[in-house]
Amino acid sequence: KTWTQYHKGLSGDPNTKNDNFIHLMGASSTGATPSEEMNGTGNLMDFLDEPFPDVGTYEDFHTIDWLREKSRDTDRHRKITTKSKESYWELIKSLLDAWSGWVVMLLIGMLTGTLAGVIDLAVDWMTDLKEGVCLSAFYYSHEQCCWTSNETTFDDRDKCPQWQKWAELMTGHSEGAGAYVLNYFLYVLWALLFSFLAVSLVRVFAPYACGSGIPEIKTILSGFIIRGYLGKWTLLIKTVTLVLAVSSGLSLGKEGPLVHVACCCGNLFCSLFSKYSKNEGKRREVLSAAAAAGVSVAFGAPIGGVLFSLEEVSYYFPLKTLWRSFFAALVAAFTLRAINPFGNSRLVLFYVEYHTPWYMAELVPFILLGVFGGLWGALFIRGNIAWCRRRKTTLLGKYPVLEVIVITGITAVLAFPNPYTRRSTSELISELFNDCGALESSQLCDYVNNPNMSRPVDDIPDRPAGPGVYSALWQLALALIFKIVITIFTFGMKIPSGLFIPSMAVGAIAGRIVGIAVEQMAYHHHDWIIFKNWCRPGADCVTPGLYAMVGAAACLGGVTRMTVSLVVIMFELTGGLEYIVPLMAAAVTSKWVADAFGKEGIYESHIQLNGYPYLDVRDEFTHRTLATDVMRPRRSEPPLAVLTQDSTTVEDVETLIKDTDYNGFPVVVSRESERLIGFVQRRELTVAIKTARQKQDGVVSSSVVYFTEDNPQVAEACDPQPLKLRRILNLSPFTVTDHTPMETVVDIFRKLGLRQCLVTRSGRLLGIITKKDVLRHMAQMMNQDPESIMFN
Amino acid sequence: KTWTQYHKGLSGDPNTKNDNFIHLMGASSTGATPSEEMNGTGNLMDFLDEPFPDVGTYEDFHTIDWLREKSRDTDRHRKITTKSKESYWELIKSLLDAWSGWVVMLLIGMLTGTLAGVIDLAVDWMTDLKEGVCLSAFYYSHEQCCWTSNETTFDDRDKCPQWQKWAELMTGHSEGAGAYVLNYFLYVLWALLFSFLAVSLVRVFAPYACGSGIPEIKTILSGFIIRGYLGKWTLLIKTVTLVLAVSSGLSLGKEGPLVHVACCCGNLFCSLFSKYSKNEGKRREVLSAAAAAGVSVAFGAPIGGVLFSLEEVSYYFPLKTLWRSFFAALVAAFTLRAINPFGNSRLVLFYVEYHTPWYMAELVPFILLGVFGGLWGALFIRGNIAWCRRRKTTLLGKYPVLEVIVITGITAVLAFPNPYTRRSTSELISELFNDCGALESSQLCDYVNNPNMSRPVDDIPDRPAGPGVYSALWQLALALIFKIVITIFTFGMKIPSGLFIPSMAVGAIAGRIVGIAVEQMAYHHHDWIIFKNWCRPGADCVTPGLYAMVGAAACLGGVTRMTVSLVVIMFELTGGLEYIVPLMAAAVTSKWVADAFGKEGIYESHIQLNGYPYLDVRDEFTHRTLATDVMRPRRSEPPLAVLTQDSTTVEDVETLIKDTDYNGFPVVVSRESERLIGFVQRRELTVAIKTARQKQDGVVSSSVVYFTEDNPQVAEACDPQPLKLRRILNLSPFTVTDHTPMETVVDIFRKLGLRQCLVTRSGRLLGIITKKDVLRHMAQMMNQDPESIMFN
Repeated sequence: KTWTQYHKGLSGDPNTKNDNFIHLMGASSTGATPSEEMNGTGNLMDFLDEPFPDVGTYEDFHTIDWLREKSRDTDRHRKITTKSKESYWELIKSLLDAWSGWVVMLLIGMLTGTLAGVIDLAVDWMTDLKEGVCLSAFYYSHEQCCWTSNETTFDDRDKCPQWQKWAELMTGHSEGAGAYVLNYFLYVLWALLFSFLAVSLVRVFAPYACGSGIPEIKTILSGFIIRGYLGKWTLLIKTVTLVLAVSSGLSLGKEGPLVHVACCCGNLFCSLFSKYSKNEGKRREVLSAAAAAGVSVAFGAPIGGVLFSLEEVSYYFPLKTLWRSFFAALVAAFTLRAINPFGNSRLVLFYVEYHTPWYMAELVPFILLGVFGGLWGALFIRGNIAWCRRRKTTLLGKYPVLEVIVITGITAVLAFPNPYTRRSTSELISELFNDCGALESSQLCDYVNNPNMSRPVDDIPDRPAGPGVYSALWQLALALIFKIVITIFTFGMKIPSGLFIPSMAVGAIAGRIVGIAVEQMAYHHHDWIIFKNWCRPGADCVTPGLYAMVGAAACLGGVTRMTVSLVVIMFELTGGLEYIVPLMAAAVTSKWVADAFGKEGIYESHIQLNGYPYLDVRDEFTHRTLATDVMRPRRSEPPLAVLTQDSTTVEDVETLIKDTDYNGFPVVVSRESERLIGFVQRRELTVAIKTARQKQDGVVSSSVVYFTEDNPQVAEACDPQPLKLRRILNLSPFTVTDHTPMETVVDIFRKLGLRQCLVTRSGRLLGIITKKDVLRHMAQMMNQDPESIMFN
Repeated sequence: KTWTQYHKGLSGDPNTKNDNFIHLMGASSTGATPSEEMNGTGNLMDFLDEPFPDVGTYEDFHTIDWLREKSRDTDRHRKITTKSKESYWELIKSLLDAWSGWVVMLLIGMLTGTLAGVIDLAVDWMTDLKEGVCLSAFYYSHEQCCWTSNETTFDDRDKCPQWQKWAELMTGHSEGAGAYVLNYFLYVLWALLFSFLAVSLVRVFAPYACGSGIPEIKTILSGFIIRGYLGKWTLLIKTVTLVLAVSSGLSLGKEGPLVHVACCCGNLFCSLFSKYSKNEGKRREVLSAAAAAGVSVAFGAPIGGVLFSLEEVSYYFPLKTLWRSFFAALVAAFTLRAINPFGNSRLVLFYVEYHTPWYMAELVPFILLGVFGGLWGALFIRGNIAWCRRRKTTLLGKYPVLEVIVITGITAVLAFPNPYTRRSTSELISELFNDCGALESSQLCDYVNNPNMSRPVDDIPDRPAGPGVYSALWQLALALIFKIVITIFTFGMKIPSGLFIPSMAVGAIAGRIVGIAVEQMAYHHHDWIIFKNWCRPGADCVTPGLYAMVGAAACLGGVTRMTVSLVVIMFELTGGLEYIVPLMAAAVTSKWVADAFGKEGIYESHIQLNGYPYLDVRDEFTHRTLATDVMRPRRSEPPLAVLTQDSTTVEDVETLIKDTDYNGFPVVVSRESERLIGFVQRRELTVAIKTARQKQDGVVSSSVVYFTEDNPQVAEACDPQPLKLRRILNLSPFTVTDHTPMETVVDIFRKLGLRQCLVTRSGRLLGIITKKDVLRHMAQMMNQDPESIMFN
C-alpha cells in the first residue's frame, strides 16, 4: 500500500488537504521514550531487546520521535563503551563501530558515483539511438563513435561515416524529404518506446520510483516513515527508468532523481550496520549525507552538494554529519570522474571558462534575468500544482500510462523540428553556456568575422551577428516557449523526473537571448553613454554565455528557492569567484520576486499537495495563539483517555485500547487530582498485557494495573494478582503549560523533534498536543491570515 | 570591570576553574519570558515598554534566554505587520525594517573589507620599516617602493636604489659586519617599539582587545553578555594594535583578530537598528555573519568564511543567517579586492597554481604530515594552556608589558639571522606554497639546471637540488623549531594575536622539507618500485609546494579542529578540486591524531581555561544521570525559595529578595501542595513592588501579593490593599520531570537556549536546574570518566 493509495482511501477531496495527514496520523501521533526510563537496574533495556521484537520500531506512515532515537543511540553507545574495557576483542569491535560511519559514507560515495556514471553513459547512448546508430559498435554513442574514427577531420567530426542516421541506414539516403520524415518518425517512435517502458516499469514494479523524490526525502528526513520508499527495488527501477525517461527526450532532468537514487544507496548500506539500521535517527544522518553525494554527482559540485543537503533537504544536520557528507560527496565525485562518462576528465557537468570580466552596468540585465527567473518560478509552481491537483482529482489520474505516452508524443513531435530542442537538454545548456571561441562551429557563434583579425584564440572582440545567430535566436525563442509550457505538464508524471535541468534550460535560453541582444546593442551603439566606458570597438566586452548561466541560476532559484547552495554549485561550475556577484544578484532577485507570489518552493508545494506531515524549519509561526487553543480534547470533546497509577484493571486497559486509536496514554495519580506521572505507549501496553496474561500466573481481567514505584503490599496478599507495569512507563513525558504561546510550542516540536507534548496547568493534566495538531493549527492560521507571513 | 578582573576577584585558584563561572552566574541563572504572557489585552507589552526601562535587558556577564529573545522579536514583528496595514508610511517603515538585515550586512562587509585592506597595507609598510625605508616616499613598503622605480630590472627588483636599508642610509655602507650589526640592532629596536606600543595601548585603552578573540566570540554567540567586548573602543584599539603586533615580527597572525574586528563592526552597525540593538538574539545572528566576513577577508575565501562561522564559531545559525553571512562575506571580499592591498588583484591571501597532478603513492607522506599536524596541535594546546595557566597564577601575569617586551626581544634576536624568520610569516608561507617556476629566484628553487633544457616555463622536470636548497633546508629546520617553541609562548599575551598564520607556517615548513625530501628521493631513485610507475627521469612528478600546503592544512586542523571549513578555505586558495583529496586526507588524519590527545581544540581549551559558561554543541553527554541528581536544592540544602500565589505579603517578598541572590522565583499554589503555576523574575518583582509602593495607594508591608487570575474579591474589601502582580508572572515556565535523563536535559538546554528549567514530579515542584548546574554537572562527569567520550 503506497502513500498515495493510503492517502486516497482516506480522503479524496483535495480541498481538505490540510486535514489529510491528520486522519492518517491519528494512530501514530502519540509516542513516548521508553528508554529514558533508567532506574539503574537496566532491566528495561533487556526487556526492550528481547521479548517484544517490534517495540521500538515504527509503523509505516508514522512519525519518529527524535529524542527517543537519540536516547536509544546513547544507550547503545554507552553499552559498547563499557564493554570495550572488558577485552581486546570488544575494544576492536567498539573501534569498528566508531568507524562504521565512515565506511558507510565510502560505500555510498562509491555506489552513487558508479550509478551516476552508468546513467550518464546509458543516457548518452540511448539519446543518440533516437537519431541513429554507430556501425562500428552499436553500443557507442554518437560522440564515442566518431571519436574512435580516424578519418574525421576537426570540422566534420559530427559527420563521421561510422555514425549513420536511421534513414541513411534503412534507405541509403541521408538527405531529402523522405529521409527527414523517416528520421522524424523513428525519433518519435523511440521516444514513445522509452517512455512507455519507463512508465510501465514504474507502474508494475516500484510505484515509489516516480517523480523527483526530493519532497518525499525531505519528509522522510524530517522524521517520517515511508517503508519501501528507499528500498532496493526502488533503487533498481528508478535507475533503469531514469535512463529511459531522460533518453525519451521529455522535458525532465536526472538531478532530482539522482538524489533519490543516492538516498536509496544510503538506505541500502545502512542495513549493513545495526547502528544505523536499528535507529531511525542515525539512519537519517546517513541519508542526509547521501543526498549531498547525489547532488555532488549530479553537477560535479561536492561543496554545493553538501550545502544543498544542509539548506534544502535536511532537517537534523549536526556538525558530524557535515563532515561526513563532505566525505561522501567527494568520494562520489571522484568515483564519477574515474568512470569519466563525459570523456573530458572534468568533474563538473557544464564546464565553462570565460575570458572577459563583467561590468557594473551589466548588473541591470542580470537583475532583469533574476526577475524573469522569479516570475518563471512562480508561474511554474502555480501551473504545475494546479495541474497535479487536477491529475489527483479527475479521470486523468486513472490513466498515468496514457498521460505519459501523450505528453511524450507531443514533446517528441514538437521537439524534432527545432535543433535546440531535438538534442538532450543538458547538451543544449552546455552550448548556451559556452563562450564563442574561434573554433566554435555552432550556429549561435555565426558572427561576421573581420578578415584581418589576428587575435589569439581566446580573446575575440565583439562582432556583428551573422544570419546564423538571428535564425538561432528565433529557434531559441520558440524553444523557450515550448520548454516553459511542456515542463509544467511533465513534472509530476508517473516517471522519474527532475526539474533542475528543464528549469536551467529555460533560464539559459532566456539568458542567451538577452546576452546576444546586449552584445549587439553594445557593438552597434558603443557610443551610448552606458557602453562608452567599457565597450570600445574591437573589445570583447559582453559574454552571452555568462548571461545564459545567470539566467539558469535565476530560474533554478525561482523554482526551488535555493540560495547559498545554488550560488555555490554555479561557482563550482565556473571555478572562479569572478562571476559570483552576477549569480548572486540574479539568485537574490529571483528569490524575492518568486517569494512575493508565494513563500513555498516547488518541493514544499508538492509536500503540501500530498499532505505529508512536514514541519518546515523556515516557516516562522507568528500568531498569538496559546497551547490551550490547540490541545485536545477541545471543550466539546470527551475527556482525555488516561490511565490511573493504581486503580485501573486489566480489563479497563484492554477496553481503552480497543475503543481508541491513540498511540499512547498519559498516566495520572487519580482521576480526581489529575496529577501527571508519566506516559505509556499503546504498543508496549498491548504487548505487556498480552505477555502477562500468557506467562504470569494470576493475572486476570480484574487484576489491577500498577504504575507506582512501591510494591503494592496490600494488593499482594489478596486475589487477583496485580500487574506491575512501571517498567514500561515513561517517567519523563514532555510537558508545557496551557499558557505557553504556540510559537514556543512550534519551536520545541521543531528543535526537539517531538511526537507529542502534554499540556498541564498547575500540575494538573489538561490535554495533549501532537505533531498533527501543530501542523493543522499552523495550516489553519496560515490560511486565515496569509499576509502576516509576508515579511521575514 | 573586565571579565578577568571579575573572575579573579571571585576565584584566584585555577584548580576550581569549573566552579568559576558558577559563582558568577548565581545571580543570573534564573530568568523568565515575560512577553510570553499574552492574555490578549496587550497591557503587558506596554507595561514592558514604558515603566521599567531596564527590564528586558541583561546584566554584564549574564546569560541570555534565547526563547525569550525570539519571542520578543516575534512580538515586535507582529506589531510592525499589524501597523503596516494602517497607512502607507507604516508599510514603508515595515519594508525598511525587513530590509535592515541586508543593509547591516552590506555595511559590515564594506567596513570589514576596508579595515582588512588598511591593516594589510599598514602591516606591509611597518614590517618593511624594520629593515629600511623608501626614499621616494617614506609611506611606501619595500615592494611598492621598487614597483614605482623604473631602473630596476627583473632580476634585482629587490635591490632598487629608492629602497635603503637603515645601515646604508645612516652610514652609507650596505655591506660588512658593521652594517649587519646596525641593521640587526635597528630591527630589534623597531620590533620592541611596535610591541611596546601595542601592549601599552591594549593595557590603557581596551583590555578586551588582546588575544585572538575567537573563544570570547564563541561564548558571546552562545548567549553570554560581555559588555564592551565588541565596543567601538575595542574596535579602534584592536585594529591599531593588530597592525603593531603583526609588524613587530612576533609569531602571530592577523586572522583570528580580524574575526574579532569584524564582529565589532557587526555590533557597531547593530546599534543603528533597534531590531538588532534591542534584541540579543537577533544581534547574535548579525555577529555570526560578521564572523564569516572576518574569515572571508582574512583568507579571501568567502565560502570558507561562511562555513567557518557555521562550523566553528556560531551557536544558533538559522538558514536565513547562512544566506546573509554569505552576502556579508562576499561584500567584504570584494571590498578588499577593490582596495587591492596585495597589488595583484587576487582575492586570496596565498594564491597558488600547481601544474602537476598528485599520485596515489604521495598519500603516504600526506598522511604523515597529517600525523605531524595532529601531534603539533596536541603539543601546542597542552603547552600553551599550561603556560597560560602559569601566567594566570604566578607573578608572570602581573607584568604583561614586560612579558611582551621580553618575548618580542627574544623573537627579534633569534629571527633576524635566519632569512626565513626575518620576513613576515605570511610572506614565508607564500614562498613555501609556491611551485618553483623557471623565473623563481628564491634560494629554495636553487636546483641544478640542465643546460640544454628547452621546456615551457611552467612544466619543469624534477632536478637535483643545488647547494642553495640544502642550505635552505637547514635554515627551514631551524625556523621550524624556533616557530614551534616561540608560538606556544606568544599566543595568549596581552596583545592581539591570531594563531592561524603561525600554525600554518609550522606546517608549511615541515611540509616543504618533506616535499623536497620526497622530490629528491624520486629523482635519485626513480628506479625504486614506488616511483617507477609515475616518476620517470625528466618528468615533473613531485610538487614540494603542495606538500607545504598540505602540511599547513594539517597543522591548522590539529590546533583548531576545523574540518570542512579548513578544506574549503584551502580549496578556495588553490581554486581547483584537484588537490582536495590530499588536503582532506591530511585534515582528517590530523584531527584524529589530535583528538586522541584531547577532544578540545585551542578555542575550547581557552574557553575552559577562562571558565566561560559555554555549552558546546559537539560534546555529547552520555552519562546515565537524571534531572533529580542535578537539580537544586540538594538534600542537605534549605528548601527552594518560592512564592505562593495568594498568601505572601509584600514584606515577605522584600525579605526574600534581600536574603537571596537568585534571579527569579517559582510561584506555587501553596506551600503544602507545591503545585507550580509560574515563574517571576527578580528584577521585575523588585521594580513592580517599588513602583507599587510609590504610586499605588494602600500598598504597605502587610499587603498580600496576588498572582491569581481572579480578582481577590474578599481581600478587596479589607485593609490593607492587595498587590496584584499576575502581569509579571511568566505562566509558561519550562519544566521537566525529576526522572528525565540528563542527556535530554542537556539537549533541551542546548537546542532551546534556556537559562533555567524547573523540575517537577507528579505536578509538584521539586527544584530548579540552571545553565550553571548543567555546565557544572557536565564538567564533573567529564573529569570522573574521561574515557567514555573517546569514541564518537
